[in-house]
Amino acid sequence: METGKLEKIFLKALPRRCLVSDRVALRTYECDGLSAYRQPPGLVVLPENTEQVMAALKICRENAIPVVGRGGGTGLSGGALPHPDGIVLSLSKMNRMLEIDPENRIARVQPGVTNLSISKAVEHLGLYYAPDPSSQIACTIGGNIAENAGGVHCLKYGLTVHNVIALKVATIEGDLLEIGDESMTAPGFNLLSLMVGSEGMMGIVVEATVKLLPVPECARVVMGIFESVQDAGDSVAAVIASGIIPAGIEMMDNPAIRAAEAFVNAGYPVDARAILLCELDGIREEVDQQIQAVDRLFRENRATDIRIARDDHERQLFWSGRKAAFPAVGRLSPDYYCIDGTIPRQALGKVLTEIERLSDEYGLRVANVFHAGDGNLHPLILYDAREPGQLEKTIELGSRILNLCIGVGGTITGEHGVGVEKIGEMCTQFTDDERELFHAVRKCLDPQSLLNPGKAIPTLARCAEHGAMHVHEGQLPFPDIERF
Amino acid sequence: METGKLEKIFLKALPRRCLVSDRVALRTYECDGLSAYRQPPGLVVLPENTEQVMAALKICRENAIPVVGRGGGTGLSGGALPHPDGIVLSLSKMNRMLEIDPENRIARVQPGVTNLSISKAVEHLGLYYAPDPSSQIACTIGGNIAENAGGVHCLKYGLTVHNVIALKVATIEGDLLEIGDESMTAPGFNLLSLMVGSEGMMGIVVEATVKLLPVPECARVVMGIFESVQDAGDSVAAVIASGIIPAGIEMMDNPAIRAAEAFVNAGYPVDARAILLCELDGIREEVDQQIQAVDRLFRENRATDIRIARDDHERQLFWSGRKAAFPAVGRLSPDYYCIDGTIPRQALGKVLTEIERLSDEYGLRVANVFHAGDGNLHPLILYDAREPGQLEKTIELGSRILNLCIGVGGTITGEHGVGVEKIGEMCTQFTDDERELFHAVRKCLDPQSLLNPGKAIPTLARCAEHGAMHVHEGQLPFPDIERF
Repeated sequence: METGKLEKIFLKALPRRCLVSDRVALRTYECDGLSAYRQPPGLVVLPENTEQVMAALKICRENAIPVVGRGGGTGLSGGALPHPDGIVLSLSKMNRMLEIDPENRIARVQPGVTNLSISKAVEHLGLYYAPDPSSQIACTIGGNIAENAGGVHCLKYGLTVHNVIALKVATIEGDLLEIGDESMTAPGFNLLSLMVGSEGMMGIVVEATVKLLPVPECARVVMGIFESVQDAGDSVAAVIASGIIPAGIEMMDNPAIRAAEAFVNAGYPVDARAILLCELDGIREEVDQQIQAVDRLFRENRATDIRIARDDHERQLFWSGRKAAFPAVGRLSPDYYCIDGTIPRQALGKVLTEIERLSDEYGLRVANVFHAGDGNLHPLILYDAREPGQLEKTIELGSRILNLCIGVGGTITGEHGVGVEKIGEMCTQFTDDERELFHAVRKCLDPQSLLNPGKAIPTLARCAEHGAMHVHEGQLPFPDIERF
Repeated sequence: METGKLEKIFLKALPRRCLVSDRVALRTYECDGLSAYRQPPGLVVLPENTEQVMAALKICRENAIPVVGRGGGTGLSGGALPHPDGIVLSLSKMNRMLEIDPENRIARVQPGVTNLSISKAVEHLGLYYAPDPSSQIACTIGGNIAENAGGVHCLKYGLTVHNVIALKVATIEGDLLEIGDESMTAPGFNLLSLMVGSEGMMGIVVEATVKLLPVPECARVVMGIFESVQDAGDSVAAVIASGIIPAGIEMMDNPAIRAAEAFVNAGYPVDARAILLCELDGIREEVDQQIQAVDRLFRENRATDIRIARDDHERQLFWSGRKAAFPAVGRLSPDYYCIDGTIPRQALGKVLTEIERLSDEYGLRVANVFHAGDGNLHPLILYDAREPGQLEKTIELGSRILNLCIGVGGTITGEHGVGVEKIGEMCTQFTDDERELFHAVRKCLDPQSLLNPGKAIPTLARCAEHGAMHVHEGQLPFPDIERF
């Protein structure tokens, strides 16, 4: 449906201030953090409360208008890529903290609240919200729920699904569901976990109750320096097998180390083939004991040097390089493309070696920065979008890397979701039966398939097509989508 | 369908040794741990492998035969109550440990493996499986998954849903689904969490991969003695609010204390109105620090005395009373009925006072033993089934208690599931829309509603009926069921 027509319909139920129809303004919604795919929406709707969300969904249901929910627009798999004939439902105006209950350590918030602002609001109580995607200053809890966002600390503290305990969800069928409860033992089927990570295809979250954790008494970080990624990978496996659960354990390979060091001077050894940053938190005695154990395990696995941050200042310095790794890599090349896959920890060395080989084959540099503890890789492919064919080559290389992850028993996403980016690989990851089941479950909540159509779960037809043609062609949800 | 006819059909695909058709033998399957409801099945099928499970399900699908899955038969909500016209599919012969991977701390097991045997099998590696329902010596992992079982330690280590990472599930439609993966970040919708706690209504688990945890270096227990349940409740809230997560925190009221003490001489103060048993585990320094904090918090909340177990022997002694509480209460009365509800921790005092009042009103003694940390109540109603009308009164009192839980913002189950027992209360707990959604999701996997029909999720018709009549009448899934 055209913008003018959409606007007219929505004006019947919503105030003008809640609608964006200007052609230039619509362009600002044409992509999320995955800028390789762009498509302006027909209209943007910015509801201010639950009633307006429900009114907008009612119009969509009655007029078969596709709805793409949007939080902070920081997603990396194109989950919030607009539909040309539909609306973007942006929850950014619903950004209030509704309740903080320090005694039960929970917060009830609207979906447009940013991830970091929850922790900021409870800092004075010695509490925080654990999942910490690197976009946490801008991404919203609604978006985190849609994508089941993770972060550096999810090895110990879990993904979004482990930290959200109740939701209010507006369905496209007009219901307002209350899902989950504070006790985490609600009877009935577990719709809460089903909703988290469903990429906006099951309903629109209008309220979320999240867990708050006490800020640990002490946090310390160890940097391990290695002459091979295999040694670093073995060290990670040894730490996990020892029973220690680090707050985070991150690996960077040489290209990532060099880029980060040149950008922020974190004190990284630029000749190392790999470094590990391992953070331990808890009470002081426990952390000290674990630091010693990690030091020993790193040495046993051929670390050439180990540095333990002496104070919180140095700890922040160590982390500064890791946190700046993406923009640092961005300085090496006009564009970069961040891949997100998961592999069994044992396969780390093998997969990184193969990525190096693929990098040579495609003539594209790849830097690796990743959550090593849970085997969540983030290869960054460096490319130049202005050079004809480079984006296509990059996307193909990304797909090869994801298929490599599947090949060693891993998965095509760790924390960024499927969106439009990996819809082709879903055909490899799941059987026809499994994908049919996903569609069937989704239809229980969205019988017309109006919520974020074309995302996350490919149709059987798309997979049949995907098998026969180039991977990146299979990824496109709409035939006429614009690609930069 | 009659036993003879069922047997004939199943013999076409399964060996005779896998079938139980003898009238007396069938009687041994007539109930699970909720003996108030009994119904012999038409036939019992005991598959020895996945192929036989799938063959049995195929026969059921093609002949519209109801299937009730069964693990150890220890469930407390009648989830494994047979259907008179259907089969019981008992997974007891599929009881092999398939793989133990100490490095990744996971075990892959068949569904009929008992809960405790997993921990026994990995004890020599310093590992264990965390969820510990009190039936752990007999209950199976398949049953634990169906009911999302908990236990004393689930406050810190989570329910079954938090400790199972992958499943192989045979569906009644003939698919063998692989759900979840070791990374816990699988793309697609979260069918794993949906499957756990679905009470045998979505499929038959034929293989489960579970997390193993390192046995904590140290575990110590504190007993707090109180003059009122309110003071004990306030102490629990204070511990949780302090940021300490005990391995378990259990409350017993005076009738439970007296019964346990008379039975096992655990050293409980028989005049106390309530005791708390609070276990802390972790590294020694952390546990010592937390013991001191708990001691202080108990005193601040009017504990009249505090005892800290001096050694592991005394720790076991303190726990022996709690662990024997159910059989101990059983000695006070010919029968007892265990209720399972969850309430917000703040409501503990209020709810226990009201349960006392209801106990007087019904003239039935009630002892309370429960997981106080997560507000999971287990009132034990004492009755005599031989006295006409007592069981009915007991069930009615149980239902009043569950509705009380809902009334204070809690739920009708903490860890025992809904089964047949609480199907009436599901009408109070959920709206029509929510229950319709449950049915719709279930139909994706079981379009003919053959898997455990009549359990867990009441139909709209049943709820309409439930509103108009006495609660315990509404609870019965089959009109002609036998009740003792």
